[in-house]
Amino acid sequence: MTLYELQPTRSARARWTLLELGVPFESIAGREVFEMPELAQIHPLSKLPALRDGGRPLFESAAICNWLADSHPEAGLLAPSGTWARALHDQWVAFTLSEIEAFLWHTARNMFILPEDERLPAVFPQNEAAAKRGLAVLDAHLKDRDWLVDDRFSLTDIFTGYAACWGVWQGMAEDLPHLTAYVERLQARPLCPYHQDVPAAVPA
Amino acid sequence: MTLYELQPTRSARARWTLLELGVPFESIAGREVFEMPELAQIHPLSKLPALRDGGRPLFESAAICNWLADSHPEAGLLAPSGTWARALHDQWVAFTLSEIEAFLWHTARNMFILPEDERLPAVFPQNEAAAKRGLAVLDAHLKDRDWLVDDRFSLTDIFTGYAACWGVWQGMAEDLPHLTAYVERLQARPLCPYHQDVPAAVPA
Repeated sequence: MTLYELQPTRSARARWTLLELGVPFESIAGREVFEMPELAQIHPLSKLPALRDGGRPLFESAAICNWLADSHPEAGLLAPSGTWARALHDQWVAFTLSEIEAFLWHTARNMFILPEDERLPAVFPQNEAAAKRGLAVLDAHLKDRDWLVDDRFSLTDIFTGYAACWGVWQGMAEDLPHLTAYVERLQARPLCPYHQDVPAAVPA
Repeated sequence: MTLYELQPTRSARARWTLLELGVPFESIAGREVFEMPELAQIHPLSKLPALRDGGRPLFESAAICNWLADSHPEAGLLAPSGTWARALHDQWVAFTLSEIEAFLWHTARNMFILPEDERLPAVFPQNEAAAKRGLAVLDAHLKDRDWLVDDRFSLTDIFTGYAACWGVWQGMAEDLPHLTAYVERLQARPLCPYHQDVPAAVPA
């Protein structure tokens, strides 16, 4: 099991999942990973995280986390297909990608990723408003709950929790007390790698 | 089973899944759906599609399609959790949301959705370049394959195929022959609701 990763980025979801499952893995980490031919053999756009499991390549943090949790059902980190809990997991994963991270990442691209002469800071306010609207949905959902699905910690929290942390780090959660408390609960877990003392504003 | 939908939009994924499975459903359709309190009770942002299945509310097209297919495993539309085929499905779903639709939708927001004085047409070229990069990954993957996973039609094609059609409709696939042929294969299927004669440029 080999994880190609760069911390702190969405790679941390795969790392946390592996740690929770107690699965040993080799880590290929750092900015130089982006130039490695072996990464390009996994992810056609050479993005992170990427996984090689017994020779099989997989990309996208959602797919990697689901695959790892599904391969170790005894850990109970993710409900199997055909259950309502799995449907809710899929709902929050898709919501996180579409309604929160799409906008956080669009801003990051225009802040760090695109060539300087192509960056468009004018897009920041609309992206922030959209991301905040998504984060506010999580905040409302967490008003009466500690965790997103079935009131217990699960892979959904590892996945969506990263976007919640990202929003908090970007200063978007000041009027979202339930989301802020949720991030504190996540960070209090012993294996959580989502911490503000790392430069989270530079996702890759 | 009640589907809240607006055609032609990403709602069509849920419709096609229901048709393939032969599941009877009530359709609540049209622009007026956005104002219905019963939609707000399902989706906190009143977006479509939304599903009510035996009283239980679910949103996000990826979650709705997975839930429907997983509820009818005998149809073989989606491999169960713990299989490599499911991991690849999850991979292409997340890739579609993050690397293609995030950018198509960002442009749509700035073309149709945001108040006119907040729209930023300057963002169109970078969004188009990013979406095309994602579509080109699909094109390359489809060079030697008819379908995305395990070389047979599956829910992955219903899901990711909508984004492929969207890209074709936006004129982004002129130099992507394998993607163009894939869209034609999708549209040749008898139950496919993805057709260019509907105003696909107005997703909701």
